[in-house]
Amino acid sequence: MAGTDRSRLEAASDTFAPAIILTRPQIGQNIGAAARAMLNCGLSDMRLVAPRDGWPNPNAIAMASGALEVLDGARVFETLAEAVADLSLVYATTARGRDMVKSVLTPREAAVRLRAHKGHKAGLIFGPERAGLTNDEASLADAIIEVPLNPMFSSLNLAQAVLLTGYEWYQAGNDAPAESMAGQEPPVTVEDREFFYGRLERELEACGFLYPPELAPTIKRNLRNMFNRAQVNDQDIRTMHGVLSALLRKSGPEGR
Amino acid sequence: MAGTDRSRLEAASDTFAPAIILTRPQIGQNIGAAARAMLNCGLSDMRLVAPRDGWPNPNAIAMASGALEVLDGARVFETLAEAVADLSLVYATTARGRDMVKSVLTPREAAVRLRAHKGHKAGLIFGPERAGLTNDEASLADAIIEVPLNPMFSSLNLAQAVLLTGYEWYQAGNDAPAESMAGQEPPVTVEDREFFYGRLERELEACGFLYPPELAPTIKRNLRNMFNRAQVNDQDIRTMHGVLSALLRKSGPEGR
Repeated sequence: MAGTDRSRLEAASDTFAPAIILTRPQIGQNIGAAARAMLNCGLSDMRLVAPRDGWPNPNAIAMASGALEVLDGARVFETLAEAVADLSLVYATTARGRDMVKSVLTPREAAVRLRAHKGHKAGLIFGPERAGLTNDEASLADAIIEVPLNPMFSSLNLAQAVLLTGYEWYQAGNDAPAESMAGQEPPVTVEDREFFYGRLERELEACGFLYPPELAPTIKRNLRNMFNRAQVNDQDIRTMHGVLSALLRKSGPEGR
Repeated sequence: MAGTDRSRLEAASDTFAPAIILTRPQIGQNIGAAARAMLNCGLSDMRLVAPRDGWPNPNAIAMASGALEVLDGARVFETLAEAVADLSLVYATTARGRDMVKSVLTPREAAVRLRAHKGHKAGLIFGPERAGLTNDEASLADAIIEVPLNPMFSSLNLAQAVLLTGYEWYQAGNDAPAESMAGQEPPVTVEDREFFYGRLERELEACGFLYPPELAPTIKRNLRNMFNRAQVNDQDIRTMHGVLSALLRKSGPEGR
């Protein structure tokens, strides 16, 4: 139990095991307990978005029950968008926002899709302990994971949510052969699709579509959620860039 | 979240949902976290065997996140045998003892069998935080549950073990129709089968079979484990009583 032992990870995990992204975690003990749950499930890629009490955090170490290799390898990011930029399939465990239209998966369904995404890097996003993810953060995700539990008492603590989703991922590796990605286009990274959404938004802003201004955030999220629900791939995004360029050439006399 | 609300249980649970038996739990916080996990999964029948710090325990309440109806209803027993006496299917989550031959199930396999046991009362036994169950305690169980996790780092804390097994039980209710018990004999309670094992042991003791004395505990456990692996039912136990009586009448000139 003492010290760091990378071999415990390398024996159980694989390069394309999903990253676990803790967004603005508040309590160091929860980060440590999440690290323990990750190592239980053979997961090692921990990413922390703006942890409240800074990093490293001695309270995390105290609760990790020896899963120090996970904490030692944790990376810190300022925003969720940066933390998931290199991933090409991301699910968020959160309550659905009222103005969000997103696919909702159980942990078991998500696990099958994560296994099918082999050869590409995926991630699971967890919100802060109390407030949950903002709608803007949730709109980065391909789909939402909801854990089917007693509807009268369904709230899980952070480490338990990590454990249940990680457990299902681990079981899915034992159970069935993962679906093949054969015949499908390569996935698009979050960074590349966000680059397209950003370009689209700037052009829509320029042509007055994002009006009135107080509705602009909702319109932007709805667009993101629509494309992400469609599970757009790399080719789709390149196509959409072309479509956008073509439309802009036609509409403006200056041929921008 | 404040106060006790039985309706949250009654809405989600059912009379034959398995009991959760915590054996000699050491840390109040773990009992509270286990209560929260139970209510997450629609489980309400908490049984405590000789909790180290007595009962009730304010540390448990602090960690229950409002799952007070589970703690309020918890019952305390002196021994594990008393705590499971009324149950007719019990699984223990523990590492297998070296001299134990018992069936081993995953939480998912156990969940299917627990659902199939409908109409009869079942239970899940958890050991103390550090030491685990004694071999004698484990021998009370029909089978052992082992959670498939990273073999290099598989230890779960008490509440997480309760959560994973409870979660699978809850999912099994959503998934598939439970197997029917039709055509099967009624199950035997732990109390009734322990009564038979106790009688058998006394008779074996009397006839010198449990020799040398230092091997007696192992022999007793092996007998229990063999019958429990066979999933003996009520009729089986009555038959075995008859067999034992018949053999005793034949062997002793005094016709006892």
